[in-house]
Amino acid sequence: MSNMIDFSNKRVLIIGGLGFIGSNLAKRLVELGSHVKIVDSMLSQYGGNLANIAGFEDSIEVNFSDIRDAHSLAYLVRDIDIIYSMAGQTSHIESMRDPYTDLEINCTSQLTILECCRKFNPEVEIIYASTRQLYGRPQYLPVDEKHPIAPVDVNGINKYAGEMYYQLYHQVYGMKCTSLRLTNTYGPRQHLKDDKQGFVGIFVRLALQGQPITIFGDGKQRRDFNYVDDVVEAFLVSTGNKNLWGNAYNLGHTDKHSLTEFVELLSKHADFESDQIPFPDDRKAIDIGDYYADFSLFQSITGWAPKTSLEEGLEKTIAYFSKCGESYF
Amino acid sequence: MSNMIDFSNKRVLIIGGLGFIGSNLAKRLVELGSHVKIVDSMLSQYGGNLANIAGFEDSIEVNFSDIRDAHSLAYLVRDIDIIYSMAGQTSHIESMRDPYTDLEINCTSQLTILECCRKFNPEVEIIYASTRQLYGRPQYLPVDEKHPIAPVDVNGINKYAGEMYYQLYHQVYGMKCTSLRLTNTYGPRQHLKDDKQGFVGIFVRLALQGQPITIFGDGKQRRDFNYVDDVVEAFLVSTGNKNLWGNAYNLGHTDKHSLTEFVELLSKHADFESDQIPFPDDRKAIDIGDYYADFSLFQSITGWAPKTSLEEGLEKTIAYFSKCGESYF
Repeated sequence: MSNMIDFSNKRVLIIGGLGFIGSNLAKRLVELGSHVKIVDSMLSQYGGNLANIAGFEDSIEVNFSDIRDAHSLAYLVRDIDIIYSMAGQTSHIESMRDPYTDLEINCTSQLTILECCRKFNPEVEIIYASTRQLYGRPQYLPVDEKHPIAPVDVNGINKYAGEMYYQLYHQVYGMKCTSLRLTNTYGPRQHLKDDKQGFVGIFVRLALQGQPITIFGDGKQRRDFNYVDDVVEAFLVSTGNKNLWGNAYNLGHTDKHSLTEFVELLSKHADFESDQIPFPDDRKAIDIGDYYADFSLFQSITGWAPKTSLEEGLEKTIAYFSKCGESYF
Repeated sequence: MSNMIDFSNKRVLIIGGLGFIGSNLAKRLVELGSHVKIVDSMLSQYGGNLANIAGFEDSIEVNFSDIRDAHSLAYLVRDIDIIYSMAGQTSHIESMRDPYTDLEINCTSQLTILECCRKFNPEVEIIYASTRQLYGRPQYLPVDEKHPIAPVDVNGINKYAGEMYYQLYHQVYGMKCTSLRLTNTYGPRQHLKDDKQGFVGIFVRLALQGQPITIFGDGKQRRDFNYVDDVVEAFLVSTGNKNLWGNAYNLGHTDKHSLTEFVELLSKHADFESDQIPFPDDRKAIDIGDYYADFSLFQSITGWAPKTSLEEGLEKTIAYFSKCGESYF
């Protein structure tokens, strides 16, 4: 914790703050004494959920607006010390079905955030939630930041363009921008309602509902999974660290698990059946296979490393949703 | 020429076909017997100019529309064999002043072209005019296709996102897409009217008008210059070559010249004075310094190499504009 700035009385704006990671971050920042304002569009499939701020809703300010609305955003970014830019379209398959919405949210709107800040609050610090998706299928493992950028879907292209804007606005305008490339994140407040947010949320929901889990392919694809508290910690230790500005850093986990192992760990806490089927064609075309990141660059600058094992994290996740799952599915 | 397909009776759509390179390509394709249709928005600063098709306007079909208009585009791409996607916002400095327009044209509209083709003409072949700008400041010379992508301006980011869509639509949908990364191109039909299209056009106009040419910096930045006929040839030899699909290739020239040398060569054909001033801040921030490309990958697949020296090309350029310059400035 010693490498974290003093967050008390910081004026923080969390864009996408009613979503999964944004709301966990909001909760933590409230505990640290920050003045937290949330911007969220409540677009139904993206995870915005008032249940995510249950219990601390009176300690934060919520503003319902869409980041595609440049006018309100230009007002909202003023008098803010730190912006966490967490809003995004994260579904890979949706980005192929509706590439324009993905483009508007993941690319155009990131430019809007930066232009608003450049004009009305150029001193603000911005931490951007990017994604491992821009690497595409790993050409080597673990994937470090020098790995070629080769997205396998529209989402990866748009997220990369969005991320590059942050780096550019640091280089050209000196703005304080850092990007974190997230891998599979899971935990309390995750979007579970539909199948739009990746296999982790889908599997957790099915496990809780006692419904069968179907794995596409052989289930041997290995991934690194980050529990949301560890990801929140990464955003916090990034803040105020000028050595990070202008670049993008991998998050990740030293433990890797296959999808089959993930399902097995889930089954320790819930009753369900599982089977495997061949990949559907549209998903096969954009599947990236094995992925795990080298996060040593980020660790060397910030000291961050994930503290939660997948087993422990899944136990906490199941416990959370067992208590208040009715708000999530 | 033996490595070129038979263009006679091919139905060709040139998007941005009233612009500099597009119109030169149109002229050549008419000579080769193609049925050429041009789409152009005539946006004043982007080079669309009816003078560019003077003399062969009766042999082509011109449709005035903007690629941001997805509805007309969806109709126009039907019953076409080959699309040359040449429309773009090319000004680096403009992309910083108005990043949204650059985004709409260089990124969003490329997605529109691909989506229209995917839905209404998935068998069409598309050759996309990309740019060396996405490499940013060279980390080594000559720059090959493995060079890191590190744009120094919004234009480079958006052009790269646009290019990645073409590669993705080949990978995922099997569409026949090839991208060529152009370097400094010059020649007849170049946009000369204002200062929006890079130093080459500006210098040529000033030379023709006998006005002083001002070089930013020491003028020692070395570049490779492609005469437009050579670039047109590159688009033609790319067409129908399935070994190129799904990738992007550098164009370039084995001869490199400093900006000072460029101005000296110009002065052989026109009377003007020249001087040097320090870089203005906004341009310095996005200047890329020395740049020249390794185009051996493209050469190895297609046999293409530029045939025109800078001296010869500038002579032809000055001759063209001396005859019909009144339509250009």
